[in-house]
Amino acid sequence: MKILKNKTISDVPYYKAIGIHCGIKKNEKKDLCIIYSEKPAVAVGTFTQNKVKAAPVLITMKNINSINPQAIVINSGNANACTGKKGLEDALTMAKVTAESLDLLPEKVLVSSTGIIGVPLPISKIVSGIESACNLLTNSKGDGYSAAEAIMTTDSHPKKITVEIIIDNKPILISAIAKGSGMIHPNMATMLSFITTNANISKNMLSKALRESVDDSYNMISVDGDTSTNDMVLILANASAENQIIDKVDDNYFKFKEALDYVNKELAKMIAQDGEGATKLIEVSVYNARTLKDAKLCAKSVISSNLLKSAIFGSDANWGRIMCSLGYSGGNFNPEKVDITIKNSKNTIQLVENGVGVSFNENLAKNILEEKSVNIIIDLHDGEYDATAWGCDLSYEYVKINGCYRT
Amino acid sequence: MKILKNKTISDVPYYKAIGIHCGIKKNEKKDLCIIYSEKPAVAVGTFTQNKVKAAPVLITMKNINSINPQAIVINSGNANACTGKKGLEDALTMAKVTAESLDLLPEKVLVSSTGIIGVPLPISKIVSGIESACNLLTNSKGDGYSAAEAIMTTDSHPKKITVEIIIDNKPILISAIAKGSGMIHPNMATMLSFITTNANISKNMLSKALRESVDDSYNMISVDGDTSTNDMVLILANASAENQIIDKVDDNYFKFKEALDYVNKELAKMIAQDGEGATKLIEVSVYNARTLKDAKLCAKSVISSNLLKSAIFGSDANWGRIMCSLGYSGGNFNPEKVDITIKNSKNTIQLVENGVGVSFNENLAKNILEEKSVNIIIDLHDGEYDATAWGCDLSYEYVKINGCYRT
Repeated sequence: MKILKNKTISDVPYYKAIGIHCGIKKNEKKDLCIIYSEKPAVAVGTFTQNKVKAAPVLITMKNINSINPQAIVINSGNANACTGKKGLEDALTMAKVTAESLDLLPEKVLVSSTGIIGVPLPISKIVSGIESACNLLTNSKGDGYSAAEAIMTTDSHPKKITVEIIIDNKPILISAIAKGSGMIHPNMATMLSFITTNANISKNMLSKALRESVDDSYNMISVDGDTSTNDMVLILANASAENQIIDKVDDNYFKFKEALDYVNKELAKMIAQDGEGATKLIEVSVYNARTLKDAKLCAKSVISSNLLKSAIFGSDANWGRIMCSLGYSGGNFNPEKVDITIKNSKNTIQLVENGVGVSFNENLAKNILEEKSVNIIIDLHDGEYDATAWGCDLSYEYVKINGCYRT
Repeated sequence: MKILKNKTISDVPYYKAIGIHCGIKKNEKKDLCIIYSEKPAVAVGTFTQNKVKAAPVLITMKNINSINPQAIVINSGNANACTGKKGLEDALTMAKVTAESLDLLPEKVLVSSTGIIGVPLPISKIVSGIESACNLLTNSKGDGYSAAEAIMTTDSHPKKITVEIIIDNKPILISAIAKGSGMIHPNMATMLSFITTNANISKNMLSKALRESVDDSYNMISVDGDTSTNDMVLILANASAENQIIDKVDDNYFKFKEALDYVNKELAKMIAQDGEGATKLIEVSVYNARTLKDAKLCAKSVISSNLLKSAIFGSDANWGRIMCSLGYSGGNFNPEKVDITIKNSKNTIQLVENGVGVSFNENLAKNILEEKSVNIIIDLHDGEYDATAWGCDLSYEYVKINGCYRT
């Protein structure tokens, strides 16, 4: 697998993408994005588990089942959630105008929104924007970088990644853009991610790969414990690589899945690291749990603890809060077997052995926690299942962002 | 029911209580408390659901089943959690020394600790402290106010309440002290509360009353989503009121239960209002849910949302975050039927009708949220069950307290 640093979603064969400013956000910031596959694509998605689903989520959950969707239209700055009938009409209008501009059937367009809840969309600005954006795509590939910018809300920078694998001697690209920042918490998918690939893969296999990959990546991050009304991950696969179709679990499937996992985990980490107000990326690895469920529950519980997140912000090796959050995780384990270690790029230090604190150099522990990326390693000595979760510290800035601005 | 503002736990007939400084905390702050019933008492308790239970919790869960416990010994400043065999020995020593000093069997003493996790108790200081404190109780009632002080950690003030009811023409007092502040979240009991009463009541009925009362009070508050390793609520009933024994669900039971509910809910609110860094008490009332479970899940989810708590800190009527947290609560409801109203002591304003925002005066909404106590009223229009939860806003100060100090 190669990581292609200078490529983005519009560099995947037969895809175009563009981001523009249509007038939802102030300061001329980009707020509208079109992703278009010139060839009919296989598409699957995973969606927020929140019972309150935004209008675009409802529309996209329906359209994803149509044959070969070819476009995604996304606006940022307004979530089109809790907007009633008008919201559904507006989401349908977004699909319809995109379809007309790209000469597609409306059900071949997927819709996504992110931003403030409960405010009607400025639909006429969005309609004009969609027409302009599609027009820009007529004679050009567009610009995947601008697309990554146009889906941001409180993100501090755009998030994108592209990898290449070879299947049947054909280069297969998998490229994605994502946004995160607030309202980030396990349970699908708690953010937006749009993935394009030229792989030739059946809908069943693509669905299996995405579902499993999302469970180990986006569903293992937490910024603030809030699951949004709008989250979705979509993948389009337009088969233009002309590899033999991947339609069963075989070596080619695993090669594709491994690359997809890499893409999603890297984006998940970028999202965690760029959580609202975050100063550090925290990686919690749980080893040797009795079941995979126990491993995941333990890792997620630790990464979600406000008390631990505050301690990491203050570079305090407060392992009691780790033991405590393991204890209320709902995961099975024996507290008397737990070992806890922290490490960064330079040093490793054990804090707990068999559930009891060991004496350690507090200054060294503080040094470790002062780095931008911190690993917490928990060995349950109770089985053979592992899981990793990612999150960020809880800072003054988080409170400021969410207390003083509507996002 | 009368509220006795100037009475405390040592004013309940045949109880004594005292708080002293034994040397765990710095600055001569009180850190050791003894509560003693001169008569054998019926005792029941509820305990943390955390899988990692502190040594005193394990000892007390055992001793509570002995016949007629008569004393509680509590230290603050050190949780005696994750302290291995030494921790269990120390907790047993606390019971043993208290028992010897008060001429009781060791299993008649209940033990409780709160404070930092993972540090061995300074047991010789505590032993001397227990002896001094019991000595002070020999010829005096002690001082319930000092007891309330001695169980505090990051609490900004002691929490206590006393009420009186009449059963069989006998005055029955119910009095309690509690501490809270951090690591406060539903699932028993997420704090410490010690209740004394002179009522004559069977163990079965006392257990039923306490369990139900805790579910509607301490288990409905959240400060930070963290459930501690040490939480417990204990009640002693020494029968000295000589009312006819309450041993079934009858009018006298309901009278007792109503008073106990009042005591526990008032303490729960005091704990929520005094949450670490809190500037406001938030009360979330959910009406007309399909089941009691749905009502409780919805109320708890809203009160636990970091995003909502940050918005309330900033006096921002961000009702989208309320809809969102209802949506991921796990409770059943129809998003299209939800009404949301906020109110304070002076004004009421509706924000949402049938799941969609209504236009409202943003300045008035800001004024309402700027008060020290804010009610969020959610009508699900979906059934007939109600629930109320209490919490506090999320402030810079919370992050500061937990990022820079070990508590």
